[in-house]
Amino acid sequence: MSELRKDLVTGRWVIIASERSKRPDDFRPAGAVAKEETPGFCPFCEGNESKTPPEVFALRREGTLPDGPGWRVRVVTNKFPALSPGAPPIKPEGGLFQSMPGLGVHEVVIENPDHAKELADLDTDHIRDVLEVFRSRIGAIEENFHYQYVQVFKNKGKEAGASLSHPHSQILATPIVPKRVKEEVYGAERLFRANRECVFCRTVGEETRLGERLVLRNGDFAVLAPFASRSPFEMAVYPLRHSPFFTGTTRDELASLAAVIKTVLGRLKAMLSDPPFNLILHQAPNPAVSTKAWPGIAGYFHWHLEILPVLTKVAGFEWGTGFYINPVPPETAAGYLKEPA
Amino acid sequence: MSELRKDLVTGRWVIIASERSKRPDDFRPAGAVAKEETPGFCPFCEGNESKTPPEVFALRREGTLPDGPGWRVRVVTNKFPALSPGAPPIKPEGGLFQSMPGLGVHEVVIENPDHAKELADLDTDHIRDVLEVFRSRIGAIEENFHYQYVQVFKNKGKEAGASLSHPHSQILATPIVPKRVKEEVYGAERLFRANRECVFCRTVGEETRLGERLVLRNGDFAVLAPFASRSPFEMAVYPLRHSPFFTGTTRDELASLAAVIKTVLGRLKAMLSDPPFNLILHQAPNPAVSTKAWPGIAGYFHWHLEILPVLTKVAGFEWGTGFYINPVPPETAAGYLKEPA
Repeated sequence: MSELRKDLVTGRWVIIASERSKRPDDFRPAGAVAKEETPGFCPFCEGNESKTPPEVFALRREGTLPDGPGWRVRVVTNKFPALSPGAPPIKPEGGLFQSMPGLGVHEVVIENPDHAKELADLDTDHIRDVLEVFRSRIGAIEENFHYQYVQVFKNKGKEAGASLSHPHSQILATPIVPKRVKEEVYGAERLFRANRECVFCRTVGEETRLGERLVLRNGDFAVLAPFASRSPFEMAVYPLRHSPFFTGTTRDELASLAAVIKTVLGRLKAMLSDPPFNLILHQAPNPAVSTKAWPGIAGYFHWHLEILPVLTKVAGFEWGTGFYINPVPPETAAGYLKEPA
Repeated sequence: MSELRKDLVTGRWVIIASERSKRPDDFRPAGAVAKEETPGFCPFCEGNESKTPPEVFALRREGTLPDGPGWRVRVVTNKFPALSPGAPPIKPEGGLFQSMPGLGVHEVVIENPDHAKELADLDTDHIRDVLEVFRSRIGAIEENFHYQYVQVFKNKGKEAGASLSHPHSQILATPIVPKRVKEEVYGAERLFRANRECVFCRTVGEETRLGERLVLRNGDFAVLAPFASRSPFEMAVYPLRHSPFFTGTTRDELASLAAVIKTVLGRLKAMLSDPPFNLILHQAPNPAVSTKAWPGIAGYFHWHLEILPVLTKVAGFEWGTGFYINPVPPETAAGYLKEPA
């Protein structure tokens, strides 16, 4: 099992992932490639189901069997999980050296059977199915209150951290509420106290009025180029209906979100030659935990998606300061990302 | 001039760098390469001094002239500065959209005239000279109390964010104390209150006693593979003499540090085929600011260097949670990084 370790000074956690353990040679350019992917073979393609861990969930044609062909969206445990199920977590121990067992869940959502079809290429019904699978897996994982936070994310392209090119997303559930999530929750709480209004609702309203950073808005969602964008062409997708938990979305809302995602990922792809990107879900922690730790959270937290194209590098200045340098003002980015006039 | 913008919820700052402004085409693979570096020409090589902004400082042979050949270490303003001198900063303004002018300093330290000689390849006298230039530039920049934090860092290799391959470091001074620096200062303060001892001194003492994560120790410095390492083969270099400010180092200490840097960078280079890395100085903010904002800071802050090889990617999970996944336990890393028996 992996180990979670805390840096006492900054409160930052790391996962020492023993299942993925590597030697120096594995990081030499040749070694790294050879280990990641056998050329010409993909364990995520239809027909190769036996090459992944057993499926946890799938949307499949009636009459087809688990771990066989006939699926539309398939969820399996990560073959090299960063976190795994196990004994319930105990308080971190160790004085200067605090650690705890790497308890959690690490799943892969294979978005479609066709290797060559990226999320943006699927029809909106299929994208809605992927989103419904996210919603259903989050709900199932959150039934165990030890899984305090469920992180859904997609790494597209090697530069964005994907080790396999077949379109997929990942779900990682952690036994603590991560630092960055806490920061967002506390920040939202502070601003709610100050303004008696959800800061995300207020931002969407104000950005809609101003228009210069509004990329797209339909009846259910708004897409912004955030005022303090870290990376060129960064986007944030907010539901217009205030809601802290992604599990609270309706099927109709997911259909609407699917259309929005198809549109904005399609524009990114066309404009930037299919760039690598990260897609990140931000939601309130497991309701079993967060409604106790933050009793008012349903009022001030507002789930959203971030889309971060990987076009610049995180370098020494960012590591040292937590600042980001962005060479494309979000107003300019929104101008390019908006519907062609 | 660039603009500093704050994300209200998380407190994260970004620099919208107008001097580096780019269009979508600049990020297409071909465009990106063409813009960065003209093949065969390097503005940092000796003889090409007229191709950089005028030099701010240089160590040069007696009788040679500024912006001509004959230097050993040369400092120039960054040609595309992320921050620039200007009117003193005012309080951020704008309600939901807080911003301030991008006031600051952005310098490049060209470490040696020879394009092919990396920091690890220089003799220790030359490395000490580079460190003395860091110390002297930090001191000069901190005379202006508007420059609240001076970040010295080195990005080595394209993957680590270097846009030019000639060996160089950078100095960026910001008009506010960055979030990540504040976190470290507050964390160190909290632990000092709890234990009546500098947490960094305590860590070095304990790691020396345990030995399993100690990479190297001489009379002045200890190099550790940190307990909560974010990346494989991460190292931290601590002075044994407690000291908050890098400007407080002596010439002898810098000579000792130069020997340590040469050794550990040499081992990294040999073991991992010259990997990309970031080297980051962590020090207390400008004394003019920090001794007022944190009156006890000299007691609990302890400057140090971080060396982060770029062997894994910052991906969706890291963006969402602030966790890092490290496939090499620091005890294993230290085993490889220690002096060959």
